[in-house]
Amino acid sequence: MGADVELTIDRVRTAADRLAGVAHRTPVVTSRALDELAGATVFLKAENLQRIGAFKFRGAYNKIASLPQSLRERGVLAWSSGNHAQAVALAARLHGISATIVMPHDSPAIKVSATLGYGAEIVKYDRFSESREEIGSALARDKGYTVVPPYDDWDVMAGQGTVALELIEDAGPLDVILAPVGGGGLIAGCGVAARALLPDITIVGAEPAAGDDTARSLASGERVRIPVPRTIADGQGATEPGELTFAVNRRQIDDIVLVDDAAIVAAMTLLFERLKLVVEPSGASAVAALLTRPELFAGKRVGVIISGGNIGAAQFANLIAG
Amino acid sequence: MGADVELTIDRVRTAADRLAGVAHRTPVVTSRALDELAGATVFLKAENLQRIGAFKFRGAYNKIASLPQSLRERGVLAWSSGNHAQAVALAARLHGISATIVMPHDSPAIKVSATLGYGAEIVKYDRFSESREEIGSALARDKGYTVVPPYDDWDVMAGQGTVALELIEDAGPLDVILAPVGGGGLIAGCGVAARALLPDITIVGAEPAAGDDTARSLASGERVRIPVPRTIADGQGATEPGELTFAVNRRQIDDIVLVDDAAIVAAMTLLFERLKLVVEPSGASAVAALLTRPELFAGKRVGVIISGGNIGAAQFANLIAG
Repeated sequence: MGADVELTIDRVRTAADRLAGVAHRTPVVTSRALDELAGATVFLKAENLQRIGAFKFRGAYNKIASLPQSLRERGVLAWSSGNHAQAVALAARLHGISATIVMPHDSPAIKVSATLGYGAEIVKYDRFSESREEIGSALARDKGYTVVPPYDDWDVMAGQGTVALELIEDAGPLDVILAPVGGGGLIAGCGVAARALLPDITIVGAEPAAGDDTARSLASGERVRIPVPRTIADGQGATEPGELTFAVNRRQIDDIVLVDDAAIVAAMTLLFERLKLVVEPSGASAVAALLTRPELFAGKRVGVIISGGNIGAAQFANLIAG
Repeated sequence: MGADVELTIDRVRTAADRLAGVAHRTPVVTSRALDELAGATVFLKAENLQRIGAFKFRGAYNKIASLPQSLRERGVLAWSSGNHAQAVALAARLHGISATIVMPHDSPAIKVSATLGYGAEIVKYDRFSESREEIGSALARDKGYTVVPPYDDWDVMAGQGTVALELIEDAGPLDVILAPVGGGGLIAGCGVAARALLPDITIVGAEPAAGDDTARSLASGERVRIPVPRTIADGQGATEPGELTFAVNRRQIDDIVLVDDAAIVAAMTLLFERLKLVVEPSGASAVAALLTRPELFAGKRVGVIISGGNIGAAQFANLIAG
């Protein structure tokens, strides 16, 4: 059944060494109010305070750092209109190499300018008539760029796994780790790291109810493709799990909690009002899961990953206004 | 000219000893994006992450801790519908004594419930026909409660001054300290602490343009009373400086920058989008001042105090929507 898993705690530790002094060591935040609401002892890993505002920086940087120098110096390419674009752009700049990002023609100006701000070149495509994979792959082939995938890559996953290393170092032993699931890279890396440190830990994913490809895939034992989900959690819009991430996650995820958009907005509001933290919809999905299914976590020590905070104030205002 | 100043660095250090392990040591946050916008090297002291969500906890706790035990055990009283109410309620609970808070009948439910949540008793009054000072003073006299003033008290000011102690310890030498001004307690305490550590430091206050009582008072050399200001910065609604705070501030404030509501909303938006921090209007006024008058700060190392983060998500959404 699928790929050999090449993701180990050693690979995550190598990523941690590369990221030391480069990525922020984000704080682990606690809140009496949240503990009371959840009926659990909750440790929030605030990756919304990571560089570029999301955990994605870790995987992109580790991937680029792991390339042979001869390949790396030719530059990298990614296709993304989200946090992965900024992650690859910044990671490339820190390595002193070029980054090319393939983005839809109609990407929000704020995302385009943020990516340009990190020194990347942007190639636009028409998402109604063109395929970003084809455009990106052809460009990478012609120019000798290495493609940095958003999740389906062992070094990307190993980078994301450093989130769990830090969380467990700072919070101490945990009974459960609860992480958002999009393509599955964050929970794959974090699950491998957490299980290595704490063999009895339970690994729970949070997925949008409208985008439950991983939940369905785990239930059926093979990767299931779903239509493009309609959810505010735009970082969790994957339509099927990655081949490599699923090879990891099918063995280690104990449960998936599905959350609807209203629960995500409630979690964002709680994080805003009680913790003074700005969290994007996908980033709040694990907190939404905690509050949607408290019986799964009652009385336990739960590490919850807040994966990102990239949301405009106006967009936040619209979500709150409903 | 007025009161003898009894606020010294030693008194601030005593407050710091009392607050150690009780108040949060809030982080000092930096941002390349903000530095570029301001043309300065900026260190933000994030008191929005303080207990009860604002610096006010420091002064209230220090005041209660400084009372003789025979007085303290009879309980304390304050009048406030804002952060000071929650600060006194929590500080009293931590001392195991009773707190009575005098609040308007029409206070927002969220503030009432937050204050009740800290175990305080609430006495309501009709703000159109009754005086909270009269009701509060009479109640304190009858019951033997000590009144905890929001700013015009040496121990309250000394508590607020610990913000600057920590900021300078963490950021290193500063050229300027820039703090919101309401009643003047925060900048009084911080100014005394900062000048003691860094004799050449410049002390700048940020005041709402509509509520410029301290700016006017400094210009005229005596306390000036203004009408109740119309501004979104509800934590800076004082109509005249305190007697004691003005005795300090007239000697030490070098400049006041006036900020309008639009500049405050812009600063709140910047803090939300770039730093992922939730900041209330008054809390963002010093950042607004930095961006309103950048020529005052160009090339300097500036410590900026973010004084609080208590704003509901819906209220934030309304402000952003304009």
